Amino acid sequence: MQKPPPAAGAITASLARELAAQRDAELPEAVTKHATTHFLNVLALAISAADQDPVRDAVELGQLVGGTGTCPVPGRPERLDFMAAALVIGIAAHVDDFDDTHLRTVIHPGAPVVPAALAVGEHTGATLGQVVEAVAVGVELTLRIGVGLGQTHFARGWHITGTAGRFGAAAAAGRLIGLSPRQMQSALGVAATEAAGLQAAFGTMTKSFHAGKAAYDGVEAALLASMDFTSAATAIEDRRGYAPTLSDDPDADGMLQDLGLSWELESNAIKPYACGIVSHPAIDAGIELRRSGVRARDVASVRLRTNPVVLDVMGIADPADGLQSKFSVYHCFAVGLIDGAGGPEQFSDSRATDPGIAEFRRRITVDLDASVARDECFAEVDGAEPRRHHVEHATASKDRPMTAEQLQEKIRLVTAPVLGPSKAASFAELALHASEDLLISDLAITARETR
Amino acid sequence: MQKPPPAAGAITASLARELAAQRDAELPEAVTKHATTHFLNVLALAISAADQDPVRDAVELGQLVGGTGTCPVPGRPERLDFMAAALVIGIAAHVDDFDDTHLRTVIHPGAPVVPAALAVGEHTGATLGQVVEAVAVGVELTLRIGVGLGQTHFARGWHITGTAGRFGAAAAAGRLIGLSPRQMQSALGVAATEAAGLQAAFGTMTKSFHAGKAAYDGVEAALLASMDFTSAATAIEDRRGYAPTLSDDPDADGMLQDLGLSWELESNAIKPYACGIVSHPAIDAGIELRRSGVRARDVASVRLRTNPVVLDVMGIADPADGLQSKFSVYHCFAVGLIDGAGGPEQFSDSRATDPGIAEFRRRITVDLDASVARDECFAEVDGAEPRRHHVEHATASKDRPMTAEQLQEKIRLVTAPVLGPSKAASFAELALHASEDLLISDLAITARETR
Repeated sequence: MQKPPPAAGAITASLARELAAQRDAELPEAVTKHATTHFLNVLALAISAADQDPVRDAVELGQLVGGTGTCPVPGRPERLDFMAAALVIGIAAHVDDFDDTHLRTVIHPGAPVVPAALAVGEHTGATLGQVVEAVAVGVELTLRIGVGLGQTHFARGWHITGTAGRFGAAAAAGRLIGLSPRQMQSALGVAATEAAGLQAAFGTMTKSFHAGKAAYDGVEAALLASMDFTSAATAIEDRRGYAPTLSDDPDADGMLQDLGLSWELESNAIKPYACGIVSHPAIDAGIELRRSGVRARDVASVRLRTNPVVLDVMGIADPADGLQSKFSVYHCFAVGLIDGAGGPEQFSDSRATDPGIAEFRRRITVDLDASVARDECFAEVDGAEPRRHHVEHATASKDRPMTAEQLQEKIRLVTAPVLGPSKAASFAELALHASEDLLISDLAITARETR
Repeated sequence: MQKPPPAAGAITASLARELAAQRDAELPEAVTKHATTHFLNVLALAISAADQDPVRDAVELGQLVGGTGTCPVPGRPERLDFMAAALVIGIAAHVDDFDDTHLRTVIHPGAPVVPAALAVGEHTGATLGQVVEAVAVGVELTLRIGVGLGQTHFARGWHITGTAGRFGAAAAAGRLIGLSPRQMQSALGVAATEAAGLQAAFGTMTKSFHAGKAAYDGVEAALLASMDFTSAATAIEDRRGYAPTLSDDPDADGMLQDLGLSWELESNAIKPYACGIVSHPAIDAGIELRRSGVRARDVASVRLRTNPVVLDVMGIADPADGLQSKFSVYHCFAVGLIDGAGGPEQFSDSRATDPGIAEFRRRITVDLDASVARDECFAEVDGAEPRRHHVEHATASKDRPMTAEQLQEKIRLVTAPVLGPSKAASFAELALHASEDLLISDLAITARETR
C-alpha cells in the first residue's frame, strides 16, 4: 500500500521528512547505482582540476584562515578542515564544466552535493555506501527543488546549480551527521536563506565557486541544525521564502510529486566529453570509427550529417585555442578519430592548435538535416577504406546511459594529467570496484596519495 | 573643481574605484563621526548578546571546524579564526534587533559591516581609525546599493540587510586588506553572487545569521580578491547580475548619485531603545518626566497623545511576556518613567510581568491624534504634582541624533548584564574616548577581558 501524499503546502517539512531524513525505506538499486556514478564522476573531476587557479586560491584561503585540518583534498597534498575541503572540492568539481547535467533544469547537482558528502563523510568516518546514499538523497532533493522553481528562476539570472544545490548539500551532510527530521527541516531552512549564485559570473572563476560555496553552506546548515539552530519551518514555500522570492512561477507542490516513487536523479547525465553536449554524437562517431580500424592517414574526406543546431553553436572551423575548440564540431570529430577521446586534454590549447589536427579538420564538411535528432549523427568517411557510421543516440544521452566501462575510462582520462597514466588507471579500476563498506577516508586518501 | 561623473552603466567598477577603494580624499569629519558611532554601537551590542543561543552555536561551529584561532570575540572567552569571528560577531550584533536602521531602505548596515571590519582589522593589526574608515565606506556602500534596489527588492521577500550587507562587508574587509581598485571590483563581484537572506527567516535564529553570514562572506570575498580571484566586472548592473535578478525595479545608476558629495550613512540611526521605533517618543516622555522629578507613586493617571499608528502596532495593554511588551506603548511609557531606560532589560519577561509595572500601566490612557507626528508625543500626568511634557522629536530621530552621552549610556546599559555594572561603565567611558591610533586588537581584547 502506498503512503498517503503529504499535506499540500508543507513542502519544506515533507522534503525533510519524506526524502532527506527518510531512513525507513531502502533506496532502490537503480538509484544507488546512479548515485555511485555521480559520486565517482565528481571525485575524478576534483582530482583532475586539483591544480587549477580557483582551486589553489580556495586552498590558500583554507590554510590562511583555518590553519590546520585533517580532511584530505583529492589530488592535492594539503589537508584542510572539512568545511574548507567542501568548498575546495566543489570548485574543483565544476571548474571544467565536465561534471553532470540534469537537462530539464540545467542543474549540475553533483558539484555541490558530492563534495559536501565527501567532506562530512571524512569527518564522521562514513563508508562509501553511506556517502553514496547521502549523495542520492542530496541529488534528488536538488533536482526536485529545481523542478519546482519553474521557468523564470533561470530566466531571472540565477545560476540554479548554486541556488538549488545548497539544499542537496545540506541534505547530504545532514544525513551523514544523523539529523532528525526536525533538524533536517531546519537545515533546509538555513540552506534556503543562503541560496545564491548569479549567471553574471559565467566565464569567471566565480562560476565554479557557486558549486563550492553551495557545498560549504550546505555543510554549515547541517552542522547548525545539529545544534538545534532554528530556521523558518516553511522556508521553501513561504510567501517570503525561497521559491516565491527567487522565481515568478514557482510550483512548490510540484517538488513533492511522486516522492519516493519516481527519482529525478535517473535523468541526471554524466558528461562523457569536455565540450558542449550537441557535438557529442560527432565525437562518438569519430571514436567508434577509430575502434573499427579507421586511421586518420587513410581518410581523404569526411561528411557529417547532423541536426542544424550543431553549426549554430559548434560552427568554428579553425579554432585558435582550447576554449574555441570546445565550440568546433570539426575539432570534436577530429579528436574522436585521432585521439579516441574527448576529455579536457582534447580541448587544450596545444591540441586545438596542433598542425596535424588542424589539417585533418579541413577534410571535414558538415551537412545540416532537420530530420536528424540532436543526439544523432551520420558519418561518411572516404579514402583508402570508405566507411559509414550512424550514431543513433549519443553516449550518456537519456536513451544510452554511460556504461561502467565508459565511466572507468572517463575517470582514467581526467585523472591521468594529475596522477600520471599508470596511477590513473589503477585509481579508475579501484573506484569502479570499491566495496560499499570501504571507509570513505581510505578512498579519499588513495585519491591523494596515489599522486 | 568637481570630478566628472563616472560613465553611466559602470556601476560595479565605479563603486569599487570611487568609493570602496578610494584613498585620495580624506573622509569628511561628520562621516567619520557617524561611522565611529556605528562601530561602537555594534561592538557594545556584540558584547551584550555574547551569551545568546545563536551566538553560542556559531562559536561552537567555529571551534568544531577551525579548531584554533587568535581573534577575540567581544564578551566571550574563546578565540576563533577571524572569519569565524566575523560570523559570530555579526550574529551577536543583530540578534536583539537593537542595532541601527536606515529608514529609507530598512537596512541595518552596522551588523554585517562592523564585524567584518573588526575581525579583519584584528587580523591585519589595524588601528581604530582605520577600522572606522573601513566601516564608513562599507556602510555607505551598503546603503547606496540598497537605495538602488528600488521598492520591489524588499517586497519580493529579501532581507535587505543580508543581501546588500555583503557588499559593505566586502568593501570594509577589502579596504583593511589593502585591495587595489581592480581587486575591490572583484570582491564586490564575489559578494554580489553570494547575496542572500529571506524574510521567511524572521522570528528565527536565522534572521541574525543573515548579518553574520554577510560579514563572513564579505571577508571571504575580499580575501579571494586579494589572490586575484576573478568575478563578473559588471556583477551589480549586468542583466543577469545582482540588481536585475533580485529586484523588479532596480536603479543601478542611482547607486552613484552624488557619490563623494553626499553621504547616505548620515541617515543611518542608532536605535536608542530595544523596541519598535514608533513608541520611542513615549519612552522619551517617561524618561524626561522622571528626570524632572516625577515618581510613579505620585502619579494618579497619565494621558498620552500620539499619532494613530502607535496603537496599530503598539496597542497591547497588558503584555504577558518580554516579546509582547515590545509592542505595548503602555509598557514603554511605564519603564521610561519607572526605570528611566528602554534597554533589553526593560523588555525582559520579568519586567513585562512585574506587578508594580503592570499596575502602573493601567493608569495610562492613549488618545490618538493624526496631527501628532510619528516621532512626537504629548504626556499629561495627574496626581500629587501635575505635569505636562511635549516630546517634539524622539531621541535618535533624524532631527535629533543620538548624542555622545546617550551613546555612552546605551553602551553601558547593554553591556552591563554581561560585563557587570562597573566594568560596563568603564568600557563605555573608554570606548567613547578611545584615540583613533588605538590598535583595534587592544579595544577588542579589552571588551573581552573586562568581563
